[in-house]
Amino acid sequence: MLIDDGLELLDEAECKTLLAQGSLGRVGMTAGALPVILPVNYSVVDGDVVFRTGEGTKLRASRDGAVVAFEVDSYDVAAGTGWSVLAVGRAREITDAEELDRCRALGLAPWADGERTSFVRMHPEVLTGRRIPER
Amino acid sequence: MLIDDGLELLDEAECKTLLAQGSLGRVGMTAGALPVILPVNYSVVDGDVVFRTGEGTKLRASRDGAVVAFEVDSYDVAAGTGWSVLAVGRAREITDAEELDRCRALGLAPWADGERTSFVRMHPEVLTGRRIPER
Repeated sequence: MLIDDGLELLDEAECKTLLAQGSLGRVGMTAGALPVILPVNYSVVDGDVVFRTGEGTKLRASRDGAVVAFEVDSYDVAAGTGWSVLAVGRAREITDAEELDRCRALGLAPWADGERTSFVRMHPEVLTGRRIPER
Repeated sequence: MLIDDGLELLDEAECKTLLAQGSLGRVGMTAGALPVILPVNYSVVDGDVVFRTGEGTKLRASRDGAVVAFEVDSYDVAAGTGWSVLAVGRAREITDAEELDRCRALGLAPWADGERTSFVRMHPEVLTGRRIPER
């Protein structure tokens, strides 16, 4: 077990498993030269993160082919346990008709009403994770 | 009530209240030209976000005076409700002895063992929040 400053480093297989099990993640990117973090409902397709969005910061970033961070975590404050997984890669808007159909079939519900008909996909080029070891 | 693409925009007072009530947040910054999001345990001191950290990405960013994003959120997947607050501002390492004493007294427990004796403070220059309206 690798330990980094008190945190157990997760191997890639564990990161992939935890990423695939989640449904709420957070996207980190830049908007107008400032860093932002926005929560999204997501799915994993062939190891890639896919989320639904409308016009706005996330779609602009994906149209620019921006490199974004994507984070999922789970903490039990009372027990003092938890883990986090961080994926980093280039975001792209899905425009291929067949790929769009596949994404629509994921049943990815957006968090709110409003026009969220676009899908963004991110292939993790970097995938890392950490867990608080049990004491 | 202001609505942005199906999400209710929170006013500054609501954002401050929600920020002050939380204990787990996520810091978004750049490391080696790549975006990262890292979870931290935090407190609010005079409206500023304060968290404890060791040597690493977060401390380097604060020593560089980097502008960072800080996000807290809460979602009830079953109920389809939730909110998120985003604060953006310059991070700085706390070096003043009196301020350090005050931060140590916050009882901010780090998430894991290891050397996390440094404190980072961020004054939100931008504070925004969104809530999923009840349907």
